[in-house]
Amino acid sequence: MAVYTDVSEEELATFLDAYAIGTLLSYKGIAEGVENSNFLLRTTGGTFILTLYEKRVKREDLPFFLGLMDHLAGKGLSCPLPVARRDGSLLGELAGRPAALISFLDGAWMRKPGVGHCREVGRALAEMHLAGADFSLARANALSVDGWRTLWENSRDRADEVEAGLGAEIEAELAALEAQWPAGLRAGVIHADLFPDNVFFIGERLSGLIDFYFACNDFLAYDVSICLNAWCFEPNGSYNLTKGMALLSGYTSVRPLEPAEIEALPLLSRGSAMRFLLTRLYDWLTTPAGALVVKKDPLEYLRKSRFHRSVTRASEYGLPADALQS
Amino acid sequence: MAVYTDVSEEELATFLDAYAIGTLLSYKGIAEGVENSNFLLRTTGGTFILTLYEKRVKREDLPFFLGLMDHLAGKGLSCPLPVARRDGSLLGELAGRPAALISFLDGAWMRKPGVGHCREVGRALAEMHLAGADFSLARANALSVDGWRTLWENSRDRADEVEAGLGAEIEAELAALEAQWPAGLRAGVIHADLFPDNVFFIGERLSGLIDFYFACNDFLAYDVSICLNAWCFEPNGSYNLTKGMALLSGYTSVRPLEPAEIEALPLLSRGSAMRFLLTRLYDWLTTPAGALVVKKDPLEYLRKSRFHRSVTRASEYGLPADALQS
Repeated sequence: MAVYTDVSEEELATFLDAYAIGTLLSYKGIAEGVENSNFLLRTTGGTFILTLYEKRVKREDLPFFLGLMDHLAGKGLSCPLPVARRDGSLLGELAGRPAALISFLDGAWMRKPGVGHCREVGRALAEMHLAGADFSLARANALSVDGWRTLWENSRDRADEVEAGLGAEIEAELAALEAQWPAGLRAGVIHADLFPDNVFFIGERLSGLIDFYFACNDFLAYDVSICLNAWCFEPNGSYNLTKGMALLSGYTSVRPLEPAEIEALPLLSRGSAMRFLLTRLYDWLTTPAGALVVKKDPLEYLRKSRFHRSVTRASEYGLPADALQS
Repeated sequence: MAVYTDVSEEELATFLDAYAIGTLLSYKGIAEGVENSNFLLRTTGGTFILTLYEKRVKREDLPFFLGLMDHLAGKGLSCPLPVARRDGSLLGELAGRPAALISFLDGAWMRKPGVGHCREVGRALAEMHLAGADFSLARANALSVDGWRTLWENSRDRADEVEAGLGAEIEAELAALEAQWPAGLRAGVIHADLFPDNVFFIGERLSGLIDFYFACNDFLAYDVSICLNAWCFEPNGSYNLTKGMALLSGYTSVRPLEPAEIEALPLLSRGSAMRFLLTRLYDWLTTPAGALVVKKDPLEYLRKSRFHRSVTRASEYGLPADALQS
């Protein structure tokens, strides 16, 4: 939850002059989104989200993020649509930060997603992968296997503060992932952070995907593995096979997985567990106590990493039989 | 900024069953309001604020607060209107807390209020005082002169940590206020916390007053003195006479001040500066470093207290000449 930067009414009025969206009626800071400052804005022209990009988002990446949302929405995917300014551009500046106005998406994220939600998110992820196939910009994934060691070096010396033996366990797993990481899987634009708080539902119906600020180019099946980690484990740490089946059958009903992707799924899942373990570990060790952010337990992802290491074939995730035959 | 309690979709759906407001479309935590958890809710029936009352608000006070909003809105004052449940009651329970749904009010609070805003807020305060005159419930002001010593005893031993000599200065001022506090001024329902973040504007037009959770019965002119403290000082600590004139002339254009109220205004202003100095001092000394609340500087109110001690007559606040003649 966060509003890092507040905005005065004068600054906002000047910013809004560049848009043809009517007169300002209200704006309120939203207690969601860890990376940026977000406001819910109402004008005589509608309801919008105003996002101020804080320093963790690189300015040079913004054309990719905003362009991607524009592209996906144009393909019929339900995601926030950046509102164009009078001059046609999607990005402005407010309170010294790059800022954009995007359409408001109805729906709420599921604090306790069920099996039906997992099926819907699988389907939507595959639809996003198909819709992104002809997006013209590209962005490397700084948080994939090549980036993990740098991330790890910033936490290694203090890892055992979190749990005894954690350092050695990560070291060994990281070496294994680097040695075995697959090559040549089908790649494209991935969301890379499709956690429950980034998927809106109205009742059981998925109403949209949000927060494309980690989107990048990488293996499509790696995105699937992120969703397995994010959606299919219970609070007690156990993998929920029924949810896994639902998510994977939702995905494969739109885009069947290829044999090489299926074979790589356990390794990719170990990799995505490592990615969230490392960023959470870093945040855990470096976030000052007074910060306005709730720190997330890195050990949740250590337990997930261990589970994936015990998996020998993708069917253990609940991959439907017809997907395996393809 | 705060959402202390998150709400799951199931709990929320059950809570909303008691209201005839249509189907849930979205809910988002709002980063405003220090005392409670607030969500902006959209349903097929409209837009609402959902408030969960956290422990600083006493459950037995809620009928006063919600009844007052209902009463004032009924008199035509622009303030949030509690939405009645199907059984006619205004209060429900959600996530183990008392919770109410109130109408959403358009408008934004002014980070940098100008002279025109001060005039509007003066006028609205007087209108609220008139509209509240026949409200049937009453609530004592626990944060007036009788309550200050208790508050002070919880901070006294550590006051000099904030500024050397602060303890002795507060002690002397508190004794003076207790000795000289007026009696018999016109009393009624006051807002008691009408700071800029509790007053919404659309452009220059005041669109509503919010946050009645400090409202109580006390001298009406004490409420005026709170607004002088809250609206008429500049960030550099100086009193802005033009804003004071605007606020007071706005107020007296609706409800003229009586001679006794005018005479008491400097003392009342010292009192309200003391009230905010003491609560801020307490919060400053006791809020843990990791709390999701921005701590406010108590010394801002020490400087205001000193200014009011230098004032000898209400005209120094900018009280219009015609008000003085009455």
